[in-house]
Amino acid sequence: MRPSGRNLSDMRPISIETGVMRHAEGSCLIRCGETHVLCTATIEDKAPPFLKGSGQGWVTAEYGMLPRATNSRNRREAAAGKQTGRTQEIQRLIGRSLRAGVDRRALGERQIVVDCDVIQADGGTRCASITGGWVALRLAVNKLIQAGLVSSDPIIDHVAAVSCGVYAGQPLLDLDYAEDSEAGTDGNFVMTGGGRLIEVQMSAEGSTFSREEMTQLMDLADSGIAALVAAQKAALA
Amino acid sequence: MRPSGRNLSDMRPISIETGVMRHAEGSCLIRCGETHVLCTATIEDKAPPFLKGSGQGWVTAEYGMLPRATNSRNRREAAAGKQTGRTQEIQRLIGRSLRAGVDRRALGERQIVVDCDVIQADGGTRCASITGGWVALRLAVNKLIQAGLVSSDPIIDHVAAVSCGVYAGQPLLDLDYAEDSEAGTDGNFVMTGGGRLIEVQMSAEGSTFSREEMTQLMDLADSGIAALVAAQKAALA
Amino acid sequence: MRPSGRNLSDMRPISIETGVMRHAEGSCLIRCGETHVLCTATIEDKAPPFLKGSGQGWVTAEYGMLPRATNSRNRREAAAGKQTGRTQEIQRLIGRSLRAGVDRRALGERQIVVDCDVIQADGGTRCASITGGWVALRLAVNKLIQAGLVSSDPIIDHVAAVSCGVYAGQPLLDLDYAEDSEAGTDGNFVMTGGGRLIEVQMSAEGSTFSREEMTQLMDLADSGIAALVAAQKAALA
Amino acid sequence: MRPSGRNLSDMRPISIETGVMRHAEGSCLIRCGETHVLCTATIEDKAPPFLKGSGQGWVTAEYGMLPRATNSRNRREAAAGKQTGRTQEIQRLIGRSLRAGVDRRALGERQIVVDCDVIQADGGTRCASITGGWVALRLAVNKLIQAGLVSSDPIIDHVAAVSCGVYAGQPLLDLDYAEDSEAGTDGNFVMTGGGRLIEVQMSAEGSTFSREEMTQLMDLADSGIAALVAAQKAALA
Amino acid sequence: MRPSGRNLSDMRPISIETGVMRHAEGSCLIRCGETHVLCTATIEDKAPPFLKGSGQGWVTAEYGMLPRATNSRNRREAAAGKQTGRTQEIQRLIGRSLRAGVDRRALGERQIVVDCDVIQADGGTRCASITGGWVALRLAVNKLIQAGLVSSDPIIDHVAAVSCGVYAGQPLLDLDYAEDSEAGTDGNFVMTGGGRLIEVQMSAEGSTFSREEMTQLMDLADSGIAALVAAQKAALA
Amino acid sequence: MRPSGRNLSDMRPISIETGVMRHAEGSCLIRCGETHVLCTATIEDKAPPFLKGSGQGWVTAEYGMLPRATNSRNRREAAAGKQTGRTQEIQRLIGRSLRAGVDRRALGERQIVVDCDVIQADGGTRCASITGGWVALRLAVNKLIQAGLVSSDPIIDHVAAVSCGVYAGQPLLDLDYAEDSEAGTDGNFVMTGGGRLIEVQMSAEGSTFSREEMTQLMDLADSGIAALVAAQKAALA
Repeated sequence: MRPSGRNLSDMRPISIETGVMRHAEGSCLIRCGETHVLCTATIEDKAPPFLKGSGQGWVTAEYGMLPRATNSRNRREAAAGKQTGRTQEIQRLIGRSLRAGVDRRALGERQIVVDCDVIQADGGTRCASITGGWVALRLAVNKLIQAGLVSSDPIIDHVAAVSCGVYAGQPLLDLDYAEDSEAGTDGNFVMTGGGRLIEVQMSAEGSTFSREEMTQLMDLADSGIAALVAAQKAALA
Repeated sequence: MRPSGRNLSDMRPISIETGVMRHAEGSCLIRCGETHVLCTATIEDKAPPFLKGSGQGWVTAEYGMLPRATNSRNRREAAAGKQTGRTQEIQRLIGRSLRAGVDRRALGERQIVVDCDVIQADGGTRCASITGGWVALRLAVNKLIQAGLVSSDPIIDHVAAVSCGVYAGQPLLDLDYAEDSEAGTDGNFVMTGGGRLIEVQMSAEGSTFSREEMTQLMDLADSGIAALVAAQKAALA
Repeated sequence: MRPSGRNLSDMRPISIETGVMRHAEGSCLIRCGETHVLCTATIEDKAPPFLKGSGQGWVTAEYGMLPRATNSRNRREAAAGKQTGRTQEIQRLIGRSLRAGVDRRALGERQIVVDCDVIQADGGTRCASITGGWVALRLAVNKLIQAGLVSSDPIIDHVAAVSCGVYAGQPLLDLDYAEDSEAGTDGNFVMTGGGRLIEVQMSAEGSTFSREEMTQLMDLADSGIAALVAAQKAALA
Repeated sequence: MRPSGRNLSDMRPISIETGVMRHAEGSCLIRCGETHVLCTATIEDKAPPFLKGSGQGWVTAEYGMLPRATNSRNRREAAAGKQTGRTQEIQRLIGRSLRAGVDRRALGERQIVVDCDVIQADGGTRCASITGGWVALRLAVNKLIQAGLVSSDPIIDHVAAVSCGVYAGQPLLDLDYAEDSEAGTDGNFVMTGGGRLIEVQMSAEGSTFSREEMTQLMDLADSGIAALVAAQKAALA
Repeated sequence: MRPSGRNLSDMRPISIETGVMRHAEGSCLIRCGETHVLCTATIEDKAPPFLKGSGQGWVTAEYGMLPRATNSRNRREAAAGKQTGRTQEIQRLIGRSLRAGVDRRALGERQIVVDCDVIQADGGTRCASITGGWVALRLAVNKLIQAGLVSSDPIIDHVAAVSCGVYAGQPLLDLDYAEDSEAGTDGNFVMTGGGRLIEVQMSAEGSTFSREEMTQLMDLADSGIAALVAAQKAALA
Repeated sequence: MRPSGRNLSDMRPISIETGVMRHAEGSCLIRCGETHVLCTATIEDKAPPFLKGSGQGWVTAEYGMLPRATNSRNRREAAAGKQTGRTQEIQRLIGRSLRAGVDRRALGERQIVVDCDVIQADGGTRCASITGGWVALRLAVNKLIQAGLVSSDPIIDHVAAVSCGVYAGQPLLDLDYAEDSEAGTDGNFVMTGGGRLIEVQMSAEGSTFSREEMTQLMDLADSGIAALVAAQKAALA
């Protein structure tokens, strides 16, 4: 049995509450168990300079964590004067993942910035950020459509992410912090609503893994993503 | 009439929800109208180096704002690589204000860090941070008392803060963003539950002010602080 | 009696020497007792970007302190790689205070930068910076008038600042470093030549204060500002 | 056919020259086609603070690129004042990968720093860094063994890395820069000499990918890693 | 004739006023024509870490310039967040030069920090900083001697510096800003009271120079240093 | 006899290999004994902003050292977040020296950036950077000439640099690291192919020096520069 007492393929309860931020063009609060992430999408009229004149837009992401989101207080990055390598790696992943679900030509020369701020952390914050960030993005794009600013929907498909790992020789889905700390291997799968892969990141954190284990993890990820996409649909309904 | 339609001495609705963060020793979400601040208090076993061997503790504060707390997105300070002068000024004010309500000798050689993160902003975020920060501090100190780690209560009195300003020649209490932007003079009063002054900061932002106006603002502040202290007591009851 | 031996309402000797810097458009060396601040005003042809096309100008300030201005050496901020929160707070205050005495439309789309560098410190450096900074600003604006670059005088009134505090239950005017270190409450009043308030900043630094004390401090400030404005007039005569 | 004219499963020529740096405990210059990386390993007597007293050692990596390693000059990170997110991500990957092949208890409380500096870049620099970095690490550990400073070999197995991608619907092995720029999907596999997985990082860079493609890429990676491990063995023979 | 109208081997008027800073262990204001530098020496009880246990002390220097020391305002380095390469080069030169005149073993394990702050600049600020910095250092060391903290005088000899250059084919002594801007070659000589060389820095700034010119410059430097050392002696008498 | 066993006026073996970098407009690897520096020249279409419209170009340099170029590992400047004062001083020297050999008007409004990266260090890295940097610059300028982008050759003369020092009372040429560490005086001479001086930098690093010694060092430098210029010619032949 896994530390959380869940079955190997059990997800934590998922809740996605939309429209939680009065100023943002799109927003949601996603809760995956005790991991809570506030996601907002901001529409900017200009694309980044490298796209000037290209007719294409951009989607980017920033990630942060409140100092006391975790069990012991983390130093505030703004006070430290820089973002850690971990933060940069995560926000690059979120941005890449969301862009994979967007037709940037249909978006036109504008930028959407997705901010993912972890209010409370219990493992899987980057996955929750992607899954919730997509909902905020979807809502912001809806505003563009309603305002007639885009002529076709720039959103190609749902994008969602889930973590998997190998713990005591068993493949697990959706690890919480305690499980993540002890897993020999863990990582994340980002996928589309249609089941195609966007990003696979799997790391040995103590013991290496086999191709058979990799296959088992991909099966778990398939089922996890299906549940997350269903939650996205329910939240937007 | 003021922009918000409120009477000159009307406060916005106040709500203080405690225990909202699972990991922090003390926490609350304070809402003053559409200004929402998440406050947590973290107890650290060590006082800062300059107090080593003094037998006294310290209370400090950090302040942040989510990028999309405001109508247009603000640059994330962690990404910019430094805190603005405004942020530093605010967090120094919060720390000073809370320390004024604490017996640092009774606290012993430990530090309490109060984090105030603005989730949504509509004017008065520094005042809400002080008022909510005090509730988080009170809750964290209660844990120290319950654990027998302090022999007498280090909290001397309530600490709360309210903004005032002069708008179109009229003194106003508890300005929202629209009022703050147009006030010729505005500022903040930090006071104790007993009605003594901790901090007065009043600035001409376009037109200077008279001693008579200063007196009217102090009267307004007295009534505002009384309402805030009552809300603190209700939240802790 | 107060530590300095002065009477409660006594100011330190004030000296303002103008034209001390060969290159600056306006300059003075102000001495308030052992606190010496070199103030220069630089006229820049362009206003900051946010004022482009507005027809209005800007006045801003920067503040610094030589490393050995104080009893023990302070780390040089340029070497540390950033200005402290205290420095930023002070220079924001100086800039705000001076702008309150300027008609920015009459100034036209240009910027005046007032640099206040503390050569020697003995308490009250931010007040001396405001009082001396105004003289440098006045001299620089005189050059604009003489050159026919402005059609009406952009200076509305004198601006000066003085510190006050409560020490051993007594209100004091113009605190030196030793007094400032031991005062339970202290702060600064910035006022116009006409006696109107620009900025009030009063902080409990150990003990809170009452409205009666606040009133006494404002009375002291009135008399202190009158003396400083007289010194400004004498220096410019 | 692929842009380079190679067959889909063809690797570029691999050359690993050891002992190229006179001062380092271990060093090599690895050439994968036109990608050239200089790798050095430095033994430090102390482990990082978080391992103090643990009896375990650490392996970490730093990555850099000469400004003119690429077709157009890149800004020197030392001059820019910070490492990019990309650099940090790569050096974290190299460190994690090498640690997966080390018994940190057998290493004892010391640290080995592996520096990977790209002299010339033509795609696949992070993979070449891992493959060459392992050779430098192996040589440095040999010195520890020869000096009797470790009682058993801390190296568990070879570690090597290869890139794969999908280009025009075809899976490719060992992409050069031109191929990497146009691939719809690409990523890296880090594996042991025994064929177990250490790290899988696969990203959609324009088009998503299927599980079938993922399987084909893993097959290609298996063959690529075998060739790289053979080259490592030959270089060390 | 040279731009300043001086003869080729004429120095500007030199004035050295000692004891100008109330807090510093040693201080002077040196004026070389319109170049004015405030120099202070601070005694610190500890030597830098790399000298711990060596029985030797250290002398170091820091250099700064007020923003309006020059004809147009320079950006404040503290605001820019770093010292320029020029500043670092100058303060390294001052420190090296002063150390060359000190017996660091006789000084004992302490550090003297010499701060040179340019109040007004008209060429030759680094030379004035060395010449004035030595006077501040001498005064601070006198306090060590008077207090019986050193058993023999750590000062070996005077240290002074002068600039030279080639302008319109003529060798010049002690260049002011206008001359420095137009000289084809210029540089600095740092020498002891006994006429030995400490530092020679000569640069072609537009036209290269011959060995004959180098010899002429060294002759000029000899006479300039003699005048500066005489001024140091007079100031200390 | 000197530590290296060489005669006082012996240079180390010089090797200059050109065209070592595939992407750069000019490149070489210069080896002066065990000091190896990789030099590249990059042509940029635009001159720096301060030359806009002047019709003149610019040559600048950047300098770096691989972390393990030295006997013990140096901290990577990119990781430290800034270049040391030493690095800045060296790269300013390289840039100034190379500019002295260039007709910037003939170069036209473009910039050439010379990167000097020390692969292995054994004393004299700044001199090797200048000598090798000139070769890279020469090769890049040749490309401009071949492409008809300049109408006359912007290169005026060779530029080369050599170190000298006084060790145990004897003048030495071309010091290696061991000699440099123990020399009482050392420094660098930068000269043209025609034997004119560009830069003289001589420092007392423990004992001062006389004019006679200075003359001896200049004689040594003459012979060293001649050997280096011959090596430059051979490499370019």
